[in-house]
Amino acid sequence: MTMIDGQMVATQIKQQIAKQVNELAELGVTPGLAVIMVGNDAASEIYVKNKQQVATDLGIEANTIKMPADTTELAIIKKIQILNADPAVDAILVQSPMPTHINEQNIQAAIDPSKDVDGFHPYNLGQLVTDANEYYPVANTPRGIMRLLKWYDVKTTGKLALVIGRSILVGKPMAAMLTNADATVITANSQTKNLDELIAIADIVVVAMGKANAIDAQKMKAGATLIDVGINRLADGTLVGDVANKNNTNLAFATPVPGGVGPMTIATLMETTVELAQQHVAHGND
Amino acid sequence: MTMIDGQMVATQIKQQIAKQVNELAELGVTPGLAVIMVGNDAASEIYVKNKQQVATDLGIEANTIKMPADTTELAIIKKIQILNADPAVDAILVQSPMPTHINEQNIQAAIDPSKDVDGFHPYNLGQLVTDANEYYPVANTPRGIMRLLKWYDVKTTGKLALVIGRSILVGKPMAAMLTNADATVITANSQTKNLDELIAIADIVVVAMGKANAIDAQKMKAGATLIDVGINRLADGTLVGDVANKNNTNLAFATPVPGGVGPMTIATLMETTVELAQQHVAHGND
Repeated sequence: MTMIDGQMVATQIKQQIAKQVNELAELGVTPGLAVIMVGNDAASEIYVKNKQQVATDLGIEANTIKMPADTTELAIIKKIQILNADPAVDAILVQSPMPTHINEQNIQAAIDPSKDVDGFHPYNLGQLVTDANEYYPVANTPRGIMRLLKWYDVKTTGKLALVIGRSILVGKPMAAMLTNADATVITANSQTKNLDELIAIADIVVVAMGKANAIDAQKMKAGATLIDVGINRLADGTLVGDVANKNNTNLAFATPVPGGVGPMTIATLMETTVELAQQHVAHGND
Repeated sequence: MTMIDGQMVATQIKQQIAKQVNELAELGVTPGLAVIMVGNDAASEIYVKNKQQVATDLGIEANTIKMPADTTELAIIKKIQILNADPAVDAILVQSPMPTHINEQNIQAAIDPSKDVDGFHPYNLGQLVTDANEYYPVANTPRGIMRLLKWYDVKTTGKLALVIGRSILVGKPMAAMLTNADATVITANSQTKNLDELIAIADIVVVAMGKANAIDAQKMKAGATLIDVGINRLADGTLVGDVANKNNTNLAFATPVPGGVGPMTIATLMETTVELAQQHVAHGND
């Protein structure tokens, strides 16, 4: 069994991004990423700081806009409208989770689809489902997973892929990408019965439940590939994924936690930011 | 085994629509449906004539716009823009298939999402995938199927649903609707291997392949429900579905062809037209 090295692939992607940033610099363009953070979620603070640092390292102009936890939906939407109109901003990210009084659907729908770096806007989701020919941004976690599958030459055509979870962040766009890549796709959720039966027949299993060690890798079939999206902190401080018992399996490939999907998500976020900047150059809005 | 009576359910829905049309008439509003037909496809001629007739019977103002087979994409888009701006038009339908020189994605994306009676616009598809709270139109064939499942009290929560086909007309929106209805959903396509294995474990099978008698109903499990979307004409003139051997099964429910899904699609098309008119009244554009 090969453990997938997300850190290594992410590093390769970041080298590619640095080149593209240089090419844009020759045109006098600096890709701009705006991150909106509402409230003081401790995990979000770390994620946002990390995004800011990686962006800066790559030559992307990143700005984090912090708003207090009691900010109204309207105030966030007004801030987004200002960023939509700002030619220095190519990409807008709203850090999840928002405080509970905020309807995240309304927030995502307020972002200009051409600056929607997470691909959560309905228009971009629809483009993904349609498998449109023109450029559109997609969610960065499933995008990163598709990159890992490609890097390790895991075939998708005609394969049975099981996606456990149906969030807009991971499960739903993941299922759409795998369908577009000619896989037969099962979307499971918290109501699913006989999950073990599905796990036992799938060639590719993507687990995005957010529940420590909820799935047993030993139940997967020989030669299958496991993608573990979860990242959960146990009481003793250890970070674990959603899947237990990855070692000593007959799997072909599996992602570790940490060091699997996580590093890819931040790399593809930067990649999408640069692509949006390239699109803005191509369409003359930058 | 109960044969699902799509004609009967469609008749009930049409009675409901007639009431809603009367309510709109009291407000001085007549729902308007514009159908664009490019070229002279014989089957399309029949479908469009049928839609026009049903609309008229229900008090919906339907207009069919015929354009020659060599019409350019731009000319169709210009026609759509005129209809988008026309307050008498609540719903715009572009009859498929278009001539091969036309990119149907571009045509669908030109329709005002608030007049997109087929739900094929990326924005509306994205709303469906998001499972948005606000009103959005959805594709009428899967919408009709969901109505049939509800009418016959076929539960979806926690059930394993297999959708064979991944078109924008049926398979993809069907999978999204079943996911939103808490089913575990398998989307199969022409590349799928071991289809029989999936058919044997599914509680609900929706077949939209467009291939006469391609699936054998006897391979489904006892108590399952079969929805046959296909409508194929054999050399001897007989109409058949995509699924053979429906009689003498241990299925709970199955749709016949004709008389199953077909009558529902036209009823839900009219229902969506009326809903779009109601939306335009509510939002003051009518």
